[in-house]
Amino acid sequence: MITLSSDFGTPYPAAMRGVLSQRTATRLVDVAHDFPRQDIRAAAFWLHETLPYFPPAVHLVVVDPGVGTDRNALAIRAGDHVLVGPDNGVLLPAARRLAATTSASEPTIGSGLDAYIIDDAQLDPPAVAGHQQPTDSTGPSSPHTTFHGRDVFAPAAGDIHEFGLDRLDALTELAFLEPTSTVSPLTLPDATVADGRATGEVLVVDDFGNAITNVPGSFLADCEHVRVNGERVPVATTFGAVPVGERLATVGSHGYVELDVNQGRGDETFGLIVGASVTLESA
Amino acid sequence: MITLSSDFGTPYPAAMRGVLSQRTATRLVDVAHDFPRQDIRAAAFWLHETLPYFPPAVHLVVVDPGVGTDRNALAIRAGDHVLVGPDNGVLLPAARRLAATTSASEPTIGSGLDAYIIDDAQLDPPAVAGHQQPTDSTGPSSPHTTFHGRDVFAPAAGDIHEFGLDRLDALTELAFLEPTSTVSPLTLPDATVADGRATGEVLVVDDFGNAITNVPGSFLADCEHVRVNGERVPVATTFGAVPVGERLATVGSHGYVELDVNQGRGDETFGLIVGASVTLESA
Amino acid sequence: MITLSSDFGTPYPAAMRGVLSQRTATRLVDVAHDFPRQDIRAAAFWLHETLPYFPPAVHLVVVDPGVGTDRNALAIRAGDHVLVGPDNGVLLPAARRLAATTSASEPTIGSGLDAYIIDDAQLDPPAVAGHQQPTDSTGPSSPHTTFHGRDVFAPAAGDIHEFGLDRLDALTELAFLEPTSTVSPLTLPDATVADGRATGEVLVVDDFGNAITNVPGSFLADCEHVRVNGERVPVATTFGAVPVGERLATVGSHGYVELDVNQGRGDETFGLIVGASVTLESA
Repeated sequence: MITLSSDFGTPYPAAMRGVLSQRTATRLVDVAHDFPRQDIRAAAFWLHETLPYFPPAVHLVVVDPGVGTDRNALAIRAGDHVLVGPDNGVLLPAARRLAATTSASEPTIGSGLDAYIIDDAQLDPPAVAGHQQPTDSTGPSSPHTTFHGRDVFAPAAGDIHEFGLDRLDALTELAFLEPTSTVSPLTLPDATVADGRATGEVLVVDDFGNAITNVPGSFLADCEHVRVNGERVPVATTFGAVPVGERLATVGSHGYVELDVNQGRGDETFGLIVGASVTLESA
Repeated sequence: MITLSSDFGTPYPAAMRGVLSQRTATRLVDVAHDFPRQDIRAAAFWLHETLPYFPPAVHLVVVDPGVGTDRNALAIRAGDHVLVGPDNGVLLPAARRLAATTSASEPTIGSGLDAYIIDDAQLDPPAVAGHQQPTDSTGPSSPHTTFHGRDVFAPAAGDIHEFGLDRLDALTELAFLEPTSTVSPLTLPDATVADGRATGEVLVVDDFGNAITNVPGSFLADCEHVRVNGERVPVATTFGAVPVGERLATVGSHGYVELDVNQGRGDETFGLIVGASVTLESA
Repeated sequence: MITLSSDFGTPYPAAMRGVLSQRTATRLVDVAHDFPRQDIRAAAFWLHETLPYFPPAVHLVVVDPGVGTDRNALAIRAGDHVLVGPDNGVLLPAARRLAATTSASEPTIGSGLDAYIIDDAQLDPPAVAGHQQPTDSTGPSSPHTTFHGRDVFAPAAGDIHEFGLDRLDALTELAFLEPTSTVSPLTLPDATVADGRATGEVLVVDDFGNAITNVPGSFLADCEHVRVNGERVPVATTFGAVPVGERLATVGSHGYVELDVNQGRGDETFGLIVGASVTLESA
């Protein structure tokens, strides 16, 4: 199967589905196409949280603020999975987690993870019906003139899938893949926890305004209240444990401390945005 | 096939798609993941309207304001279909309609509908790649620490599907299903129609602001106008029958009276919200 | 495979997926269900841009401001593809492009394109579980009482697919298809380019506020700046080439000139809406 993730909204992902359908009959599953636009870290977080629940698959990821620059297109093999997308770090946190089942220590490129640069000159381009695009070979290159999701990443993902998820040790047989030992790094920041105090930050804000921090949920163990940037907030196990409109700290399904509001937006009420510092203290 | 419905937005449903894909190769079809958040009645209405158009299937539904409380997880067998979700009534209106084809009288639990409590301790948990979640066994239980859609409902739905839609008479062979005769009730309210007057309420407001009432569309038969809470409104069969921005009463595809505005929002123009009383009179 | 496109939002498309699933096991792929509501031209543009990337398929399209009027339901055969939807022009730009691979001159109905009126009285209606709808045969016909996407277009699309994409020369064997030589026209407007000046208009605004014009991207070849309705704007190949919040002109993946803002909305900053005139001059 192939999963699809992007910050494209609609209808741009449809062209990727079409190109994939030209190359494979396998199941196509959307992860999301409304990741915060050009936010590499948010996409990396959500992929890290969702891709580990999939069976072996090729994961096509296009969150690509560098499109139009000379950043590489990458494929990373992680255990039974392959991730395909831009070389900007977005693939790495999920790749490390997907590879961890088959690796004793933290996987890195060359040790648990194999990385390949995609040479699009070696890819069969997508078939496209009808007239040539109006600007072929005449207009400037632009953020989208080459739509890399459709023209590079989807063809590569489809061809890697058809090559065989059970033959990933032989990926170099694909002419468009060139092994590389260097990729752009990305590590989601860790919180510091000591002496009843956790210092971290907001990693992402979800659709509902819940501010997801990087503080491990274990920090809230046995707490009834916690100070969030100095203010005392109840620790609760259900939204309904506090009145409508009231704040709570809880542990999300990802295992991190979330700052939420019952039937409201935690980000606005706590005054937090992505990247904002968060200090939690026992209270 | 398996349908998926929730109020999760994105990307949380992707983890459910992953878990289902671990267990079954059957078709996965999204009904919607943007049901009004935690609104059991709206979800129940839309499921009642859409699920009857599907062939025999397992329907996974997660609209669950009680997550984190001790509400049960349920499976309800309705004819050739099985609905899986929380025991809060959200499954019942659709289940009664799905079972009606095989039942002379209104189906109830034990008479046309079979209900089972899902014992998650008897379910094989989803496989998940990589590191354990940061809070495993240390943080408090929370609204999401156990993500029931991913960890309970999706595994149950996948296993029930693989057990076989043609073997639903033998569902008790599944160790995680315990027959029950009691479930949380939910009935969508009926309107009262008499003497040229209908008294009902707004059941839901759709994406476009159309206020869908529980008054049967037949009330508008042969009417050119109708009074809506005292105000005279044209009855029309197309939006275009009234000028842009003007109100109309019409009959939606669900068969109920809708209060709409041509290229506008009916809810705002009529001053109606979900649950608001609506009186219709011949005019 | 069958693609689905509409302006329905959710959850109405789910009923179409259900009806299609009653009739075919083929792959169902969403193009988009959030096309600007009742905007035939925007939908026609996006279909023209995305459908050519699909392998042979049936394309179900429901953007239908005339629902409830006597407009016809159409199927158009274009090469190896069939488009199914209302007779309002929305299918034509994509159909002409899909047929162009097999036609030397611009395809028209009868020359490269075959059109059929769908006689819904000859279609097997969808199966639906449970009670009859509350208004059956009693309420007025209305914009939605017959939900054409669910009750006409989806059944026709499913039956045409099952008839066989390799038998499209024999489509008249389907009793519900009546050949026609006349359909409602739609042509996306062309820009005028001469003497270093292009006069066109905004065709659509995408999800991100990029204003997509009908000026061919080649107009920007070798330009560093361009005057947009008199104001001088940099021509750039990446959003990041201009500061956050600044305007740029670029060439989108569709090959037309786009007026964008780095991390902002081009439509608002340029003061442009769909249909607005745009004059570009060398600068």
